[in-house]
Order: sequence, then structure tokens, then C-alpha cells
Amino acid sequence: MNVDGTHYRSIWREANGIVRIIDQTLLPQRFEVIPLKSLEDAAVAIETMQVRGAPCIGATAAYGMALAMGRDASETYMDAAFSRLGRTRPTAVNLRWALEQMESVIRNCPITSRAQAAFERADEICNEDVEISRAIGTHGLKLIEEIAEKKPGEVINILTHCNAGWLATVDWGTALAPIYMAHDKGLRVHVWVDETRPRNQGAALTAWELGAHGVPHTVIVDNAGGHLMQQRRVDMCIVGTDRTTRTGDVANKIGTYLKALAAHDNNVPFFVALPHTTIDWQLRDGCDIPIEERDAKEVTHVSGHHFAGGIETVQISAPGSKTANPAFDVTPARLVTGLITDRGVAEASEAGLLKLFPEHAKD
Amino acid sequence: MNVDGTHYRSIWREANGIVRIIDQTLLPQRFEVIPLKSLEDAAVAIETMQVRGAPCIGATAAYGMALAMGRDASETYMDAAFSRLGRTRPTAVNLRWALEQMESVIRNCPITSRAQAAFERADEICNEDVEISRAIGTHGLKLIEEIAEKKPGEVINILTHCNAGWLATVDWGTALAPIYMAHDKGLRVHVWVDETRPRNQGAALTAWELGAHGVPHTVIVDNAGGHLMQQRRVDMCIVGTDRTTRTGDVANKIGTYLKALAAHDNNVPFFVALPHTTIDWQLRDGCDIPIEERDAKEVTHVSGHHFAGGIETVQISAPGSKTANPAFDVTPARLVTGLITDRGVAEASEAGLLKLFPEHAKD
Repeated sequence: MNVDGTHYRSIWREANGIVRIIDQTLLPQRFEVIPLKSLEDAAVAIETMQVRGAPCIGATAAYGMALAMGRDASETYMDAAFSRLGRTRPTAVNLRWALEQMESVIRNCPITSRAQAAFERADEICNEDVEISRAIGTHGLKLIEEIAEKKPGEVINILTHCNAGWLATVDWGTALAPIYMAHDKGLRVHVWVDETRPRNQGAALTAWELGAHGVPHTVIVDNAGGHLMQQRRVDMCIVGTDRTTRTGDVANKIGTYLKALAAHDNNVPFFVALPHTTIDWQLRDGCDIPIEERDAKEVTHVSGHHFAGGIETVQISAPGSKTANPAFDVTPARLVTGLITDRGVAEASEAGLLKLFPEHAKD
Repeated sequence: MNVDGTHYRSIWREANGIVRIIDQTLLPQRFEVIPLKSLEDAAVAIETMQVRGAPCIGATAAYGMALAMGRDASETYMDAAFSRLGRTRPTAVNLRWALEQMESVIRNCPITSRAQAAFERADEICNEDVEISRAIGTHGLKLIEEIAEKKPGEVINILTHCNAGWLATVDWGTALAPIYMAHDKGLRVHVWVDETRPRNQGAALTAWELGAHGVPHTVIVDNAGGHLMQQRRVDMCIVGTDRTTRTGDVANKIGTYLKALAAHDNNVPFFVALPHTTIDWQLRDGCDIPIEERDAKEVTHVSGHHFAGGIETVQISAPGSKTANPAFDVTPARLVTGLITDRGVAEASEAGLLKLFPEHAKD
């Protein structure tokens, strides 16, 4: 999407062959593009969260493999690169998928053309991801248009949680893709951005993305969304997801369930946007999705821009108090109005999903 | 309650006549007792939130009037003191109530005994508040004991939001009073403390209070409570309230409604603790409670303890993004299991409240 009028992806390869990313650890205070010159650069970018979001991590890992092949196209070095990149963020599903894609291309290539083939496959992985996001956007756009028809000329207020925008993918995003398309088409959308404690991805990344592209938005604390829905100031919710069961239960950033409850209580449509790759056809019950418990320091300490310049960290909670930090929660299918996938919008149920993905009926 | 084994109130007058408070702006990092030597000290303490919480503000204003009379017991100075204190936090109901109590005592006194009478009435106001909180605690304790009977020997997990503890009153608190009583009686209570963005009263004040008194507790982000309830890790919720309608709708710190929804969805009892003075007998519908919109900076900036010492402030959200900051929300009576008042536990309905407060039937 655009950053002050110029189009960017979250990762790209230039005509001169140089791979570049946006250093997301510096956002929202500083927009800085940095090169990935080596396997190690790519691995560190993932580890230190200069890139985050499963699709963006996958794309970075793919280029990491290509950069490794550019230096040494032996199978030994390929194995070392696979292993180095695989250890960066062990839980991201797309990371392993991307590495396996790259491995298969590299293995089936004579050594002299491995680097080129690897870069081409990495480019392709990025382009495929953009097409998936674009398809999600196209299907979700229709839902926004339906609401727009009911209140012609008025602002359409959409609430989102965490960051499921273009920074988390290669372009467009998942939950934000329909919003960007609606905005670009001239619909009057306005986004309520949950700050998304404890890591504040909403306030830091979603707000920055939307602002850079010119989409009107307002940052709110996570506590405020229910009140806004009671006041009829939210027309719909769209969020992303990390994993969806075959029955339509949805694991997403902690706090999503509370917004789904409030949407249900106030008859606000609650949609979840997802690439088909995040559907776990083996799982029937959302309760079986493992929930990551993260570092207490994310809760006790907050980092941000200090007026004197630079990023500083302050402790907000009472010293000595214990903390718990579950990173995700599960929203049951009964609270989800629909699943916006790259194949279309499905009812949040096994029947609904199988209508779009019949090839998984016997999984 | 206790601070490391020594009993404190949030405000008190010593045998030598000196009025002291705990400077709550320094918590949780520093516990510091400061004297209020003059009307101006009292007014500034309320304005700068060295004291906060409606009952504690009322008690401080009462001593402010007494301190004024100690310097100059004329009616002119009394009027000036009334007006100075009345302007400090214009929305707190107890502030005006306390000032009117003091005014009536002072007016009905000969000038030579006004200071003494005023100090005595201020002492009384504090003691009355302690008795109200103690009564809330006694009635709420029975609810905790009922849960304890169902799981003998096991920990009872109670979730709370914001700070409705002894720091917000003179002693005991409202929502926390039953918890302190249960703990002091030897019941195994554990409190999930919502951090309560944007002002973090949970992480800063509730966690500190509970820690200082020795009550086991865990700080969580506001997003986490729903997930914990889904996991059956919450036995009950107890929160405070700023205003309750005669039909049992409850206005409280923003985010309370979301927890009430999650409690309802998971069959977790959801109680609201309140002194009878916060019932607004004129209001039937919670939607008519005016909701204060507070400063954007509470959302965009966070203050806390910097590792180098002192309190620092950092900006967490994207520069240039708009914010909204509603300070309260309304939980409809249908989501409230019961109202814990100083007269007993009422069903959250007009009939339930009138059973305990029949004198308001014709209000």
C-alpha cells in the first residue's frame, strides 16, 4: 500500500537484485527501508521482528534461502540455511512452508542455476501472497459495500484488533485489505483501531499503516470497543486470525473474543479475514488450539518514543506483582458472522467452509 | 488495610492534629505519606490526584474545610474554601456532598468552636465511609464463602477491573473489601487484576494494594480476562461502580461491560460492589448516564518507572493518529449477578434494589 503517496510492499527485490524490507521495529516513529544482504541479515530480521506477521515472515525466509544460494549453492549450505532460518520463530506456520518450497526448488536444480531459481521462487511466493490478500480484499469489499448501500453518503465505521494489515503480509493485508479497497474506491470508511495490549500492534502498526495510506482512523484502548458498539458507532468488525478450525472457531490475538461478544450483543457483524493456508483442517474444536504464553515483561513494561528522542521503556505495574500473558484467545464460530477467505465469504461452520473448500471434505 | 504489616487508611488525622494522606501519584513505585497543612494542600492533593476515588476525595475535601477553619473561621473564608475545593474535580459526587456536610456543621457553630467541630465532622465522615466499606465487605464475603464451599481447599479466583480498593475509599474499598475479608479470614483467594488502560489503575494501584496487604494476585492485560474465563480460571468477578441506576444498570470504568459479557457467556458470577450513595434513584436507563470523554494523551502516552530512576512518559501510538477516550461504559442489569451494597446483596433490578432501600420507592 502507499506510504505518503508512494507504493510499498513489506518486502521486495529491486531490479538490481537487492532485497529490501521496512524495519518494523522502528515504526511508528521512523519509516526506514533496510537491505537484506545475506542469509544472516534475513534470519536476524525475523528474530528481532524487523519483519513480523506469518506471510511476511515466510517471504523473508524465502529470500533468506535465495541469498544463501547466491553465496554458496551447495546442498550442505542449503541445509545450514534451512536450519538457521527454521530456528528464528519456531511457531510461525508460513515459515516452514516457505522453507520447504525453497528447498524443493533448490534440490531440483543444477548447482549453477540454483541462486537464480531460488530468487525467482521467492519472488513468486511474494506475488502469490499478494494475490491471496487481493482476493480476500475483493470478497470483503462486497460486505463493506452492502453496509454502504444501507447508509448512503455516511461514514462506515469498522473496528479492527491487532495488525492484520499489509505490514503483516506482503501487500494489502488480510483484515485491512477490504478496507484499503473500499477507501481506494472512494467509500467513506473510518477505522476504530484497538491499541492491542500488550504489544500495541494496533496503536503502533495499524494506525501507522492506515495513516500512511490516508485512511481515516481513530486509536482506542482495548476497553473502549464494547462501549462504542453500544453507542451504535461501529458498523462492522473485521479481524485477522492465526488459525481457524474446520468448524469455524478462530484463534486470534488476545482480546478478539471480547470484541466478538460485544458485536454479538449489539448486532454488529463480526467478520474474520484469512488466507486459506491458516485453516487447520485437522482440528474440530477451538479449545484444542494451543495458546502461547509470552514473556511477563510485555505486560509490566511499555516501550515508546521519548520526547527527548529515541525509544525508551518504562515499567507500569507494581514491582513484585506476578503477571500472566496469554497471547491468543479463541472466538467460537457462533460469534462469527462470516469468514472472508481468498475463495469467498464462508459461513463460520464446517458446512460453510467445505462449500468453498470441497477438497478437504475427507481430511 | 496493611502496608507491609502496618495498618493504614488512605487519609487520617493524627493525635497531634496533623492530617496525612498517601501520595497516590507515586504508587506503585514509592509509598510516601505527606501532610495536608492547609486548605490549599488539600485542594492541590485532589487536583493532582495524590488522592482519587470518590469517597477518598470527599474525605480530603472535608479535611480541607476543617484546615481552612483552623486558619480563619469566618463565613467569608468558609465560602472561599467551599468554592476552591468545589472546583478541584467537578464531577465527583462525594466531593459536593462532603462540602455540604461541612458547610452545614460550620454554619451552625459559634465562630470560636468552628475549627474543632469541622475537624470532628471530617473524622466522622471518614469513619462513616469505613463502616460503609466494611458492610459491603461483610455482605460480599458471604458470596466468596459460598464459592469456597463448592471447592474446599482450592484457590478461589476473582477477577477485578480498575481500582475499587482501600486507596479509593478511606479503608477496605468497595470491590476489594470482600476480598480483603476473605483473605484475612484465611480463605485462599487469588485476584486477576485487569491493568485497566488507559490509566492503568489496576496494574499500578490494585496490584500494589493487594501486594502490600499480602493478597495473592496476577496482573493481566484487559484483553486477557475473557480467555481466562473460557479456561474456567475465574470463579467470580467483582468490580466497583461510579453510578448505578434504580433499575440496576451500572456505569463503571471503561471495559467493565466487556468483562460482564464474558462472565455471562461462561456462567461466571459477575458482582458489582457499591455504597448506597452511588445509586442514582432518578435514572431508569443506563444509556442516560453521561460518559466523560477524557484527554487523548491518556491513550497515546504511557507513564511509568524508568530503569534509570524517576517517572518517564513515552508515546506508544502513531504520531498524527486521532484518538477517542471514553472513560466509562454501562453494563446493563441483565449481565449483573448481584449488587453488593452496604445494606446487603440486591438483585440488579428495580425490585431488587427497592427491597433493600424501600424509602426510595416513590423517588
